[in-house]
Amino acid sequence: MYTKLERIKKDIETMGRFNATPGKGLTRFSYTPEDRGAREYIKGEMLKVGLKVYEDAVGNIIGRMEGILKYAPTIIIGSHFDSVKNGGNFDGPSGVVMALEIARVIHENDMRLKYPIEFIAIVEEEGGRFGGGLFGSRAMVGKVTREELDTFKDDSDISIAEAMRAFGLNPDRIQEAVRKPRDIKAFIELHIEQGPVLEATGKEIGIVDYIVGIKQLEVIVKGQPDHAGTTPMTMRSDALDAASTVISQVSGFAKEAGEGTVATVGVLTLLPGAPNIVPGQVKFVVDIRSRKSECINQVCKEIMKSLEKVSEVKGVQYDIENKLYVEPTQLSKKIMDCFIENCKKLNLSSEIMLSGAGHDAMMIENITDVGLIFVPSKGGRSHCPEEWTDYEDLQKGIELVYHTILDIGGGRVT
Amino acid sequence: MYTKLERIKKDIETMGRFNATPGKGLTRFSYTPEDRGAREYIKGEMLKVGLKVYEDAVGNIIGRMEGILKYAPTIIIGSHFDSVKNGGNFDGPSGVVMALEIARVIHENDMRLKYPIEFIAIVEEEGGRFGGGLFGSRAMVGKVTREELDTFKDDSDISIAEAMRAFGLNPDRIQEAVRKPRDIKAFIELHIEQGPVLEATGKEIGIVDYIVGIKQLEVIVKGQPDHAGTTPMTMRSDALDAASTVISQVSGFAKEAGEGTVATVGVLTLLPGAPNIVPGQVKFVVDIRSRKSECINQVCKEIMKSLEKVSEVKGVQYDIENKLYVEPTQLSKKIMDCFIENCKKLNLSSEIMLSGAGHDAMMIENITDVGLIFVPSKGGRSHCPEEWTDYEDLQKGIELVYHTILDIGGGRVT
Repeated sequence: MYTKLERIKKDIETMGRFNATPGKGLTRFSYTPEDRGAREYIKGEMLKVGLKVYEDAVGNIIGRMEGILKYAPTIIIGSHFDSVKNGGNFDGPSGVVMALEIARVIHENDMRLKYPIEFIAIVEEEGGRFGGGLFGSRAMVGKVTREELDTFKDDSDISIAEAMRAFGLNPDRIQEAVRKPRDIKAFIELHIEQGPVLEATGKEIGIVDYIVGIKQLEVIVKGQPDHAGTTPMTMRSDALDAASTVISQVSGFAKEAGEGTVATVGVLTLLPGAPNIVPGQVKFVVDIRSRKSECINQVCKEIMKSLEKVSEVKGVQYDIENKLYVEPTQLSKKIMDCFIENCKKLNLSSEIMLSGAGHDAMMIENITDVGLIFVPSKGGRSHCPEEWTDYEDLQKGIELVYHTILDIGGGRVT
Repeated sequence: MYTKLERIKKDIETMGRFNATPGKGLTRFSYTPEDRGAREYIKGEMLKVGLKVYEDAVGNIIGRMEGILKYAPTIIIGSHFDSVKNGGNFDGPSGVVMALEIARVIHENDMRLKYPIEFIAIVEEEGGRFGGGLFGSRAMVGKVTREELDTFKDDSDISIAEAMRAFGLNPDRIQEAVRKPRDIKAFIELHIEQGPVLEATGKEIGIVDYIVGIKQLEVIVKGQPDHAGTTPMTMRSDALDAASTVISQVSGFAKEAGEGTVATVGVLTLLPGAPNIVPGQVKFVVDIRSRKSECINQVCKEIMKSLEKVSEVKGVQYDIENKLYVEPTQLSKKIMDCFIENCKKLNLSSEIMLSGAGHDAMMIENITDVGLIFVPSKGGRSHCPEEWTDYEDLQKGIELVYHTILDIGGGRVT
């Protein structure tokens, strides 16, 4: 191995100390003192290995290493360094540490690649502070508007623009964060899996072929809020009786669709919500994700058919609203092949897999070829204090990216 | 008709003015200025027709008319005069107006019955202020404890005992409200149906044979709160997927049980409750009501069988807790026969029916023979500003009770 376990461990642990909720998991929101602390550490580590360090207009941290070729497009590697509220040490920072460690290995081996490399630590991926999410990477691909900076606010009613200003950034200059496709050769991200698949299959590396498309449907079923004692069964229109019939079929619809399709009802509220009143209204959200948009559409159609049938049989009405739709993202086959090749060389077991969660990689795919690998999450847990990835597992992923970078960037293993 | 429509209308409308939420339905909680206003009106009307008026230890208003026989047990007629929050004019007061109007008819026709009659207006049936419910009638049958008066509190943290004291009642004397079975010959209540049956069948009078037994089960289904994107369908234990399967069967279980059995899931909460997290826990309450306790037990068993099956198939765990059980109350066949006989005489259409809601009648059945009739509720609605019973329909019910009282009480129609 070229990478060093001790340095990886130190990076993760040090960044984990910039935390607003010690003892209750990691909370590092963007443009806060915790952001500042982690930021200074990351920049310091970058400077130690001779990178040219700067922050872009939204505060993404970039450490640049020039290549042999002049005016050549750059390879960017890294991930985000913010966290959710009461999350863990690994979601995001694992990919930042990957960047820092690879920069160190290249530096200490005195290597030069043909192409420039930018080692990046991205802000506000989680949307933990302002909602929304993927903010730093959206800014890089020109999908953040100036209005949004005034609209999105944190729990203390501070807008993104205000927070940026207080942090020393100028919200009127966000367009300067936008990267030109012709300047970028590839983006590679390493992230924890946040799911149980690698652990269950005993594989060391997940090579992501697609980031799921996501559709969220909000369904409202309307019945009649009658007295639960005095209304005979035959004279009711019970919104929950109807809704539960549909909800109980959702998992079956997802399984039938295949292609890694998942569907979940994670939110449900009912009105009026008393033990002795027949539910007059049930509102629920179905979250459908898949490698293929056809599969998402198939699940939607099945849900609508089921609602239609239930509304006739149970005498209820319903509304459906599309609250969110994101197309699936197909990642670069060339980079995937490169990952596969290097897994063989490094004797790492791997699994081609779907990413069920969104990542910065998804945004950056708008402007360049993207590769994404996963390292195992213990118990499949993430976004909680129990989030954990063994440092040895993280190191294997970093080693894989290192070799892949050399291939793509035209370097050599000394 | 012996009763007068105009007086019935005036009673209902006048009592409807003692209301804490004008324009937003009727709110008349116990031991409040609104209670005081309605109370003074009721007592005034009772005094006008020569009744001996007193209030018992919990504030039930009683107007007594002596009979020809000395030391004979008394017939009690009436209902409650409190309301739910933002309710209507008819739930409760309809039965109080029945008592007032019958007292007037007896008085103006200068009649004397063999047995004494007590015309009653009962407090705190709804539990709108302090929770619980059936408070005034429970006090009459010795089922209110002194502790309860300190335990149950309203939204302003005022206990029943404190509210009673502020209203001029002595909470330490509640045992004085208890009535001896040997002193009571019968209790007759008139109430609005609060359901759609009479309107749907076009019947004028509901003659209640049973007040439903009620069982409330609290069910907790426990799964695993995984990420809704990264957890494949085959690796989940989704508490809502499992719970909705059971809930969708509940209405079928009730229909199969027959005997007017109804079952409702009116409360459901899930944790953690985010669109992108598989529900880790679902808690819901099943309210089961029936004429027969066997039917309630049958529905419970079916629910438990379903939960057992679902827990195996879906990999979830569950807990069930009995939160409430009340046996069905069978009302007096003798009094029912008397209602049926008088419906024929008065040419009133009637339906033998189940009461799906609890009533003071249910409590008082502990100490005497009880009769209960319903008058139609428009649209089956109650506990809302739209609650309505046509005055003509109410009058028919009052006329029926009047003739029934004469039969039971040994009077005569002049």
